[in-house]
Amino acid sequence: MTTASRGDIRPNEVAVEWRAPSDAALWFIGIIRTPWASRPECPHYGVPDGPICRIEVSEPWVAGLDGIEAFERLEVLYWLHQSRRDLVRQSPGNDGATKGTFTIRSPVRPNPIGTSIVTLVSREGPALNVRGLDCVDGTPLLDLKPDRSQFPRRGAG
Amino acid sequence: MTTASRGDIRPNEVAVEWRAPSDAALWFIGIIRTPWASRPECPHYGVPDGPICRIEVSEPWVAGLDGIEAFERLEVLYWLHQSRRDLVRQSPGNDGATKGTFTIRSPVRPNPIGTSIVTLVSREGPALNVRGLDCVDGTPLLDLKPDRSQFPRRGAG
Repeated sequence: MTTASRGDIRPNEVAVEWRAPSDAALWFIGIIRTPWASRPECPHYGVPDGPICRIEVSEPWVAGLDGIEAFERLEVLYWLHQSRRDLVRQSPGNDGATKGTFTIRSPVRPNPIGTSIVTLVSREGPALNVRGLDCVDGTPLLDLKPDRSQFPRRGAG
Repeated sequence: MTTASRGDIRPNEVAVEWRAPSDAALWFIGIIRTPWASRPECPHYGVPDGPICRIEVSEPWVAGLDGIEAFERLEVLYWLHQSRRDLVRQSPGNDGATKGTFTIRSPVRPNPIGTSIVTLVSREGPALNVRGLDCVDGTPLLDLKPDRSQFPRRGAG
């Protein structure tokens, strides 16, 4: 968590006192490969016709992909590992104006979990080729689920 | 993580070898109050006209809500704390037929993070009244963000 409070703070941003989080733990189940080597290169949002990115699922989770080819759209959860986590008000425009963290989709948040809806282009064994991501190359994968809109009468959680 | 491998396994379900996750850590930023006291009572999916549920944000994160009244729809992330986490194939119908974990929206997943789109009914200080949730009363809150569809030209992560 060394990145949590690293970096300069912009004018009028508000940081909370940092403590090491310990309420629950995650394991990374794969890695996301994208064309963007650094965060400034990333698009502000994923688009359905964006470049193909590759989601590589690690063992022992590959069997969880069985049948995934049936879905056109997937929800992807990933860990925004470069984000600081202590800002409760932040200034995306670095212009002195700040917004509450929960009113923007900035990667800077107490639990930096990104969510995107992607279109599934193809599967190659443990890897999925998708469009619609916006994260930096090497982002850790947390979860994959069918897009909720494909479960109009189901889809808990 | 004691619940991770607790409970019976259903016919043909496949569990992976469990190890304590340690790749990243979460902190709970609030709690979700719903009408459902146990998991079997929960609906299979949230609906926009479902009952009002209450999202209670804890300090030091309340200031992150500033301005949230401007949004009709929010994305809510929460920790499905009652879920086992080691099933890679599971049998939602308990009928001997199993599906890959990433092809269903079951709460049982390696990183049990639930996501819902809710409509914001009202704010009362640190609490939001919303419709559209499906989780058990007492579910820990992880994050709140504006629904991505409200950021057609922005909304990274």
